Amino acid sequence: MNEQVIKDVLAQVLTRVLDEVAHGDASHAAAHPTGPIPVELSARHVHLSEQDAVALFGAPLTHARDLSQPGQFLCKERVRLIGPKGVMDNVAILGPSRGKSQVEISKTDARMLGVDAPVRQSGDIAGTPGIILASQTGIVGLDEGVIVAARHIHMSPEDAARFGVTDNEKVCVRLCTERPLILEEVLVRVSDKFKLAMHIDADEGNGSGWKNGIEGIIIGKSGSSHGLCGR
Amino acid sequence: MNEQVIKDVLAQVLTRVLDEVAHGDASHAAAHPTGPIPVELSARHVHLSEQDAVALFGAPLTHARDLSQPGQFLCKERVRLIGPKGVMDNVAILGPSRGKSQVEISKTDARMLGVDAPVRQSGDIAGTPGIILASQTGIVGLDEGVIVAARHIHMSPEDAARFGVTDNEKVCVRLCTERPLILEEVLVRVSDKFKLAMHIDADEGNGSGWKNGIEGIIIGKSGSSHGLCGR
Repeated sequence: MNEQVIKDVLAQVLTRVLDEVAHGDASHAAAHPTGPIPVELSARHVHLSEQDAVALFGAPLTHARDLSQPGQFLCKERVRLIGPKGVMDNVAILGPSRGKSQVEISKTDARMLGVDAPVRQSGDIAGTPGIILASQTGIVGLDEGVIVAARHIHMSPEDAARFGVTDNEKVCVRLCTERPLILEEVLVRVSDKFKLAMHIDADEGNGSGWKNGIEGIIIGKSGSSHGLCGR
Repeated sequence: MNEQVIKDVLAQVLTRVLDEVAHGDASHAAAHPTGPIPVELSARHVHLSEQDAVALFGAPLTHARDLSQPGQFLCKERVRLIGPKGVMDNVAILGPSRGKSQVEISKTDARMLGVDAPVRQSGDIAGTPGIILASQTGIVGLDEGVIVAARHIHMSPEDAARFGVTDNEKVCVRLCTERPLILEEVLVRVSDKFKLAMHIDADEGNGSGWKNGIEGIIIGKSGSSHGLCGR
């Protein structure tokens, strides 16, 4: 090999590495092609157990309209949240009913209500604060269940294969918004019942300039040693 | 050169490039070392012209306590914001008075007040919405001046030299929070009157899990062709 050959090889190596950086594969972990993910803003809402639904409304929940995740729906019923510092009226209830009631609010809401809600994955409510729920005809005190929902992506096994990720992995997602940012530690949830959608809360939405139709791009996995994230 | 030498050189090149990526120099633009930047949450507040201060309080603004930026202070006076959809009481006023009054709120506040406030740099208020300000003794209607303050970093010329950035450049900043993220397009403001501090608004703070004492790291410049950001 002469010097020119060596220089050519070096130039090719550099070009390839820089290209990987420029095209979002800097983590050297996400070797699969990615594509846009619809980003939905999850406003404050409540999931009710059947028992709590009956206590509040005298009957099971009723369907108002379908949500993006198959089988999930917005209910006709609305509920009042009563915290030690504040009250929020007309809060949405999502069906179907669950084993345990759960209240998903933002950190901003938590401050207004006076409830120190931690960031948790849906369903992980052990040790979280409670709150009082009220309707026109009933009142229910929850001992626990108030969380700030951790951002996450719902996807099918086919989508997971396409993105090169698995259930419960955490990824970094760039939001292409007016206030662009890269959200780290976004949990991937894989199920054949899920439709591709990323869910962020109202603070994340307002802080990023989210609008209807905004998309996200997975740019790498969280916490990889050569990655952008988790350093 | 024999093959082993070539392999060694290639290994060194790869190590250096990957190291640059891992240590936040992926933009190949920020060649300077970086360090942590204190991140402060800028809650909703008002700057008043001297004329508007006198109209509201019958006298110039009075000093309550110093803020982190030299010469800036929190005033004893508080003001009420009155929008078409809502009212916010007890809003902080920052001194000294300015040429024009300006109201800095979050997108969440904007929704509650019913004011379509755009994301703008401080002082850039042409064409922004107005609002009504009220005290116990006066009322002032602003024709314009309501903004959502764009995130920015105050720094001295010495800090700018240390970070390898210049006034009005935009950088990407990682926040080391409970909900970690990389904020893109963070404006750098350089002045010998400034003390090193990054300012984010309440939505960005709540959306990122900001707490007192949180720091940010500049990981690259926005929009560079080989960078992480602005792709």
